[in-house]
Amino acid sequence: MEKLELRYEGKAKRVYATDQSEYFWVAYKDDATALNGKKKGQIADKGEVNNQLSALFFEEIEKAGILTHFVKVLSDRDMLVRCLDMIPLEVVVRNIVAGSLAQRLGVEEGFVLSQPVVELYYKDDELGDPLVNESHVAAMGWASDANTKEIQVLGLEINKILRAILVKAGIDLIDFKLEFGVLDGKVYLGDEISPDTCRYWDMETREKLDKDRFRRDLGGVEEAYQEVFRRVKKVLAKA
Amino acid sequence: MEKLELRYEGKAKRVYATDQSEYFWVAYKDDATALNGKKKGQIADKGEVNNQLSALFFEEIEKAGILTHFVKVLSDRDMLVRCLDMIPLEVVVRNIVAGSLAQRLGVEEGFVLSQPVVELYYKDDELGDPLVNESHVAAMGWASDANTKEIQVLGLEINKILRAILVKAGIDLIDFKLEFGVLDGKVYLGDEISPDTCRYWDMETREKLDKDRFRRDLGGVEEAYQEVFRRVKKVLAKA
Ligand SMILES: Nc1ncnc2c1ncn2[C@@H]1O[C@H](COP(=O)(O)OP(=O)(O)O)[C@@H](O)[C@H]1O
Ligand SMILES: Nc1ncnc2c1ncn2[C@@H]1O[C@H](COP(=O)(O)OP(=O)(O)O)[C@@H](O)[C@H]1O
Ligand SMILES: [Mg+2]
Ligand SMILES: [Mg+2]
Repeated sequence: MEKLELRYEGKAKRVYATDQSEYFWVAYKDDATALNGKKKGQIADKGEVNNQLSALFFEEIEKAGILTHFVKVLSDRDMLVRCLDMIPLEVVVRNIVAGSLAQRLGVEEGFVLSQPVVELYYKDDELGDPLVNESHVAAMGWASDANTKEIQVLGLEINKILRAILVKAGIDLIDFKLEFGVLDGKVYLGDEISPDTCRYWDMETREKLDKDRFRRDLGGVEEAYQEVFRRVKKVLAKA
Repeated sequence: MEKLELRYEGKAKRVYATDQSEYFWVAYKDDATALNGKKKGQIADKGEVNNQLSALFFEEIEKAGILTHFVKVLSDRDMLVRCLDMIPLEVVVRNIVAGSLAQRLGVEEGFVLSQPVVELYYKDDELGDPLVNESHVAAMGWASDANTKEIQVLGLEINKILRAILVKAGIDLIDFKLEFGVLDGKVYLGDEISPDTCRYWDMETREKLDKDRFRRDLGGVEEAYQEVFRRVKKVLAKA
């Protein structure tokens, strides 16, 4: 597999063409941004954790019968994926209230939702990724009604899969963000599943083990990313 | 019908008990607020227009087979309604982008949506009436799933009814806000339908004939309210 020209550089990953037109080479970076790009920094070895942790999760999600873009790990920081026609929506699934939702609903961070919440955000940095609903998506033509439904259903299924793994790692899955794309008319899970895109709290200490340590200057950012990776690897160890 | 004690004073109306426990006496005020309460004022004779215009619309909506709280007009400024157990959601239906939606979607005010948009806002002044979706409503227990679906369907039906009237009055219905409540297990349309809760644009001149004249200091506020009332009354004149 050959890495060819850079196709897209995002905030967390570089996407390269390869010698096979159906695959992209994804290189995970240590760059970290937050607060809609206003806060910028680096998290040492984040690229390695996010690549390999994402790979572990994608494998488990595939095993559960959900299509993902994941093909294989190429190196510590690199992954081979299927090229998708990305749907410009972020699907956020939440089990416990944190971040912006606390203000929106008027409840404390840590409030346990009586059932998971699924949200759609229009992926657009300039607009600040606004919350939208199904009728906005339909009226703007951002996705078909069927795909809009499907990505929300898949979000809830993936929530169950991830929680089942993480509970064994002593981690509460607070919320997470997914991105999906279309290939041959079918919906695939794309992007990444990492401490950048999830909120993880230690079940015992309630300590945050995710990007909120960076967003809120809590220190121990690298250690938290490593800790989640270490625990999940242990749970999924072919034992 | 006797007007008894004041039960609730809102920003636009006073709600009184009556000698019949199933009915409320609603008195429409001239008070106007905007920008989440930061802007306050009076619009002369607004109470009269909003009461009588709402009555005209409620009658047409009832004729179309949708339950409403409207019983009868009591005076220029007063209306008798059924007491509802209000659902704490505002249902907003939009045909053309205006106000906050222009920023959210990144399009100009005046953008014609390819199909109507329906939004849910949690009715809470302190939170600034945040946009929410069906899963927030379900997780917070603000309404049953069935009622959440029904009020959105009713919103779209009422959109058709109102547009059919307003087009004959030379008015484009840009968007509007509804509130619903429950009585004997059934969903009823409540509150009001007025230039306070709708955006109306003159079809020829594109002039705003609604509360945006007050919000944006455009002048001619009273005249705009009177003009809409005059035109709708003419369209619905038992002729
Ligand atoms: N399988 C895929 N096919 C095509 N694009 C993808 C795939 N997976 C992820 N992407 C996109 O790659 C881009 C790079 O990721 P990232 O650095 O996280 O970018 P961003 O700053 O836009 O979030 C994103 O726009 C993401 O949606
Ligand atoms: N049929 C009804 N039964 C009970 N309450 C109603 C009914 N119709 C409207 N209301 C409520 O009456 C209150 C008074 O209206 P308004 O002055 O517009 O108040 P607000 O400032 O809360 O919008 C609102 O809370 C509204 O939801
Ligand atoms: Mg990204
Ligand atoms: Mg009101």
